[in-house]
Amino acid sequence: MVTQAQGAGGGLPLEGMPAWQRARRQRIVDAALAALQRQEYEQIQIRDVAQVADVALGTLYRYFSSKEHLYAAVLQEWAALGRAGTTRSRRRSAEARVRARMHGVIKAFERQPQFYKVHMLLQSSSDPNVKALRAEFAESAQAMLAEDFAVLGADRADDAATMLWSIINTMLSQAIYHGGSMAEVYRIADRFIDLLAPELAEAALAP
Amino acid sequence: MVTQAQGAGGGLPLEGMPAWQRARRQRIVDAALAALQRQEYEQIQIRDVAQVADVALGTLYRYFSSKEHLYAAVLQEWAALGRAGTTRSRRRSAEARVRARMHGVIKAFERQPQFYKVHMLLQSSSDPNVKALRAEFAESAQAMLAEDFAVLGADRADDAATMLWSIINTMLSQAIYHGGSMAEVYRIADRFIDLLAPELAEAALAP
Repeated sequence: MVTQAQGAGGGLPLEGMPAWQRARRQRIVDAALAALQRQEYEQIQIRDVAQVADVALGTLYRYFSSKEHLYAAVLQEWAALGRAGTTRSRRRSAEARVRARMHGVIKAFERQPQFYKVHMLLQSSSDPNVKALRAEFAESAQAMLAEDFAVLGADRADDAATMLWSIINTMLSQAIYHGGSMAEVYRIADRFIDLLAPELAEAALAP
Repeated sequence: MVTQAQGAGGGLPLEGMPAWQRARRQRIVDAALAALQRQEYEQIQIRDVAQVADVALGTLYRYFSSKEHLYAAVLQEWAALGRAGTTRSRRRSAEARVRARMHGVIKAFERQPQFYKVHMLLQSSSDPNVKALRAEFAESAQAMLAEDFAVLGADRADDAATMLWSIINTMLSQAIYHGGSMAEVYRIADRFIDLLAPELAEAALAP
């Protein structure tokens, strides 16, 4: 593994960072994200990312304590981009919106399974910076799904999103690592929405 | 990683194995399972397992191509033991049976999280012997859950078991690796059964 920790304190905190530093950090994340769109994680050299971002390697490691830390930030950015890219149409039923959003999430991983693989790889990282960002990524994926369940009320929406994300997560593992089909991921996720459909319809009709 | 592959052909096929070889293989699996009940996977030395099983190290590697292969067989054995240990009482509703079985599965992983960790570790193994056994383990866990959904009909029972196992799997990861609570695993799995409860009750009443 190409882990290069800068030491216990590595990784500048994003909060309170001046604008010019944020911009530089963003440039690094953008370059790393673009690299993962072209090639597998294992093949990415951090020095190449630094070069594309036009920063010294040592500077990159002031922002990110390890390759894992950098890619935890990349995953978060990728999720934010996906979220910003979804339409917020209100023209359909709650059920239709839930399905559309869910299909969008699965399709994103289907198109770029390397992002899912990084998500899985980072699972075993012991870098505290990674753990924190990875948790935010999972929360963010769930929060996105929960938005469309909102009609069920906050608690039930959170639970439904947790279940749906759990199902997608395991099924994606099956498809990406163990020869399962992507069609099966969509099918089982849709079956789950079937179970919620009566409740979604009822809640939408309530005053 | 303490992988010691014996070469491409390692691992005698279980089918067609004479009884004395089956008994020896079983002794190896039993010794390896007992070792995992005492310590973490990483700390287990294959030579110690061979010694307890009273076979030469080279003999062990004729049965199992790698430590991963051996422990894929151990997981399967562990699942079979768990399955044999569950009661087959018919005294309650389908819903109650589903919940009892599901709680049993979660509790087994709660008591011995090292078995879950091995399940996760083996995910990234490229040994074909491991892939085959690991798939059987997941299928066996799902089949166990599907038994109690049988009242829904075969297809729906399979889908329900797939969903439930997916939820348990992701939630266990969260609890075991990322500081999530075990109580949350039970709670979310129970919430999922809540969604199926009307269907289970209806199916049970059907002629």
